[in-house]
Amino acid sequence: MYTLSMNIKLETDYVTRINFTPVAPEDATISIFDHGFLFGDSIYEVVRTVNGVPFAWPEHLRRMRNSAVRLAMELPWSDEQLTGEIEAAIESGTWDGETYVRLVITRGVGRIDLMPRTCDDPALIVIAKKLPELRAHLHEVGLTLCVTDIRRNSRDAMDPGIKSGNYLNNVMALIEAREKGTDDALMLNEKDHLTECTTSNFFIVKDGVIKTPSLESGLLAGITRGMLRDIAVDRGMPFEETEITTTDLESADEVFISGTIKGVVPVIKVIGQVNWEGDPGPVTAKIRDEYYTFAGLQ
Amino acid sequence: MYTLSMNIKLETDYVTRINFTPVAPEDATISIFDHGFLFGDSIYEVVRTVNGVPFAWPEHLRRMRNSAVRLAMELPWSDEQLTGEIEAAIESGTWDGETYVRLVITRGVGRIDLMPRTCDDPALIVIAKKLPELRAHLHEVGLTLCVTDIRRNSRDAMDPGIKSGNYLNNVMALIEAREKGTDDALMLNEKDHLTECTTSNFFIVKDGVIKTPSLESGLLAGITRGMLRDIAVDRGMPFEETEITTTDLESADEVFISGTIKGVVPVIKVIGQVNWEGDPGPVTAKIRDEYYTFAGLQ
Repeated sequence: MYTLSMNIKLETDYVTRINFTPVAPEDATISIFDHGFLFGDSIYEVVRTVNGVPFAWPEHLRRMRNSAVRLAMELPWSDEQLTGEIEAAIESGTWDGETYVRLVITRGVGRIDLMPRTCDDPALIVIAKKLPELRAHLHEVGLTLCVTDIRRNSRDAMDPGIKSGNYLNNVMALIEAREKGTDDALMLNEKDHLTECTTSNFFIVKDGVIKTPSLESGLLAGITRGMLRDIAVDRGMPFEETEITTTDLESADEVFISGTIKGVVPVIKVIGQVNWEGDPGPVTAKIRDEYYTFAGLQ
Repeated sequence: MYTLSMNIKLETDYVTRINFTPVAPEDATISIFDHGFLFGDSIYEVVRTVNGVPFAWPEHLRRMRNSAVRLAMELPWSDEQLTGEIEAAIESGTWDGETYVRLVITRGVGRIDLMPRTCDDPALIVIAKKLPELRAHLHEVGLTLCVTDIRRNSRDAMDPGIKSGNYLNNVMALIEAREKGTDDALMLNEKDHLTECTTSNFFIVKDGVIKTPSLESGLLAGITRGMLRDIAVDRGMPFEETEITTTDLESADEVFISGTIKGVVPVIKVIGQVNWEGDPGPVTAKIRDEYYTFAGLQ
């Protein structure tokens, strides 16, 4: 069915493991009766290595177990087993440099029924590849965002705090953002509060205070976001989790985003329902440098 | 990887086809690099046969093409090709009676990136099985519903009018409904208007008028729902698509739901944020009989 080597088709080397067994990327498949395929009924995490060691893995593991609880998904594996899978994937990589690892857990094979009661065995999938080089120029040039017409899923409906395989909300927002010529989408919730970008958290700086949307706004509790908060508090940098509107954004001094893979990246322009422009600023540079030092990234 | 025969594990016979080729159910797999698996980036339809012929297939095909347009998914197949796949699956079934057919189209294999730009080839999956016997007693006994705390995804976020592989909103609602001892979940939107159940549309009858939530409330434009409307209008039965609140539901004379597989089924009890009880009523029986006659089901 898949005649092309996945590594050739996807233009990079991959390590893939399914249910604790290494498989070639072109043989890495999942049953069409798996609810992870039928309904997006799966959870996942992405980690990166620093000096070959998974960074902040305990935090990611805790979040993954929380996602499982929220979806009433019972995981039959110990922390040691899950950690072992991450390590096995990293050790199998033959590339130079750091590793990107994606761990996906699906509901498993079951009858075609939304209720997962016939899904006895969740499946565990690991995909690893060389970590993309941090595009260093981004730290000088910065990214552009679009506040999209697509709203972020509501906490009351499909809570963005659950890191699941239901990503069409973000896919549609990203398509809209790219059509409008920007790098990423920034989504409002139903109350007109800003939430997050499609795979990163969002921050503004105003009068020296770093502000990021509170979890109540409906967003993923990013691991990097949490570390930036802790670092800011520790270093005496004012930091607020709060409601942020487009009006707040319009008057921001600096804007930046954060994520496990992209780190901390300045934003230089936001369009859509706002019109904000600015340069990468000193507060962004300071929190980024503090974070990179903390993470051992420089 | 899948050592059990899927037919044994799932306790029924299946016909499965992938990309126009018949495959055994246990070999029916999809790449873990398919965005349908990674992000739930897929669309689908379910049809049933009547006397061996797919019922209302043109309407399902039209809705599927609309879902594809909404997700900017280009389908390389003609209507004839898609129809041929449905027919091929039906012809391959060795069971007696009618057939259930599920057609899934995924975004295809691509890099791990929400943007589908590297996904060149959508995958086409067909699953067929014997249509479950209509549980005739349901027409006398009726179903129970729970208005869940889980809200329906908003039209502005992940429009329920797109029939996609992102079904966790419904899965979570159904889990809540079952925990509360009811058969299905009934979901409110963010404006406190009733929308739909997890795999069916919702109707109340009040003073002889059949009322169903309007598409603006955020729901799938059910094929059966549309036929019931057309039949009602044709037979001079008052029918309204409108906003429906829990207060409207509390005062309803009859409640019923509709769907491709379940047909028209009376509801006898709704709990959750309401407390409604009633018997299967004459208007439900009449529209059901008219629909079954129209569909050739009796």
